[in-house]
Amino acid sequence: MESSYEYGDVNNMVESLKDHTVTPRTEEEKEKVMNRLKRIEGQVRGIQNMIDEDRYCVDILVQISAIQSALKNVGYSVTERHMKHCVTDAVNKGEGDDSIEELMAVLKQFSK
Amino acid sequence: MESSYEYGDVNNMVESLKDHTVTPRTEEEKEKVMNRLKRIEGQVRGIQNMIDEDRYCVDILVQISAIQSALKNVGYSVTERHMKHCVTDAVNKGEGDDSIEELMAVLKQFSK
Amino acid sequence: MESSYEYGDVNNMVESLKDHTVTPRTEEEKEKVMNRLKRIEGQVRGIQNMIDEDRYCVDILVQISAIQSALKNVGYSVTERHMKHCVTDAVNKGEGDDSIEELMAVLKQFSK
Amino acid sequence: MESSYEYGDVNNMVESLKDHTVTPRTEEEKEKVMNRLKRIEGQVRGIQNMIDEDRYCVDILVQISAIQSALKNVGYSVTERHMKHCVTDAVNKGEGDDSIEELMAVLKQFSK
Repeated sequence: MESSYEYGDVNNMVESLKDHTVTPRTEEEKEKVMNRLKRIEGQVRGIQNMIDEDRYCVDILVQISAIQSALKNVGYSVTERHMKHCVTDAVNKGEGDDSIEELMAVLKQFSK
Repeated sequence: MESSYEYGDVNNMVESLKDHTVTPRTEEEKEKVMNRLKRIEGQVRGIQNMIDEDRYCVDILVQISAIQSALKNVGYSVTERHMKHCVTDAVNKGEGDDSIEELMAVLKQFSK
Repeated sequence: MESSYEYGDVNNMVESLKDHTVTPRTEEEKEKVMNRLKRIEGQVRGIQNMIDEDRYCVDILVQISAIQSALKNVGYSVTERHMKHCVTDAVNKGEGDDSIEELMAVLKQFSK
Repeated sequence: MESSYEYGDVNNMVESLKDHTVTPRTEEEKEKVMNRLKRIEGQVRGIQNMIDEDRYCVDILVQISAIQSALKNVGYSVTERHMKHCVTDAVNKGEGDDSIEELMAVLKQFSK
């Protein structure tokens, strides 16, 4: 209801591209992203506490902005890895343009 | 480390303004925000699972973008409430400009 | 065609609110905003030259990002002035909530 | 003064990458981007008139947000072209990672 995003087109493209063999993340890579996401999860719970304790709105906004920034950084790191592996593989197979168009569709959502 | 945000100035201003009596959220208001934040928390855990299962990067990016959008909506609703209560009270007391400057400083972070 | 923004609701609200007497900008204020906007106009022409000269895409993106940042700053300064004058006046007349809702609708567009 | 962006790193990378032979834009491509940029230039001048005529702040903010959106679209189209030509060429020469890191550095600025 709240979200007016249309993922239709993106999802269709995804269907055709996500069967590519993907270089799995190493344990170290996984752990690094996981730690960031757990920290973000903790920050979201922190905001729940702030709401519960009737904390000052501006303090809450500062925390929300910190989470936005942390999520963006995860997004950038996923995007970079995607380009270095999936998009690069697709280019090498001569299917780069489809892969690039798929990524662009998502970046447009992402930086909204 | 990852975040290059400087909350220094904001925090100083906050000190001077957050002692204002705040209209506490009603139980209904609290519940509504809480539900949104719990959904966001669940979405963050969902991404952890996606990383764990080596899901396709683009699918992960779509989810991150959905969380960004949900967090923004929480931010807007907190901002609107803040303006209708805290900023309005400050204006009525003749202290509106300080309150507005404080809010602007946070909005600049928020929409980064 | 490219823009999917719907200004309908905003515009309707604007109709009812923009008849408020507005504190006109001083000559100094006007000049300051004008100078920023002229600089932005020059930057946009600069990008046209870069396209014309087949300059490197990344250089062009850096310039676009600089304009985005400059435009955001103009937007913030207009928003701050709006809150300090129009919204404050509306609050003083007991019509603050309408004015705040109108501003929120625009801020949601603005930070997209 | 207003901009706190640091282009240092980006610019250094650019030095090493922008010597790559670039597929020049066709006349048609150039014309399309030029038309968009001229429209944006006109919109920026339009805001100058609005300031000059003391138009309602919210109307001005709506126009600024329209320009932001138009500029973003130019940025996306430049980014997509860059990926399909420059990044793809770099991948084919085995220098993809540098090109991707350069692009990521700019995207981080761009979506700020």
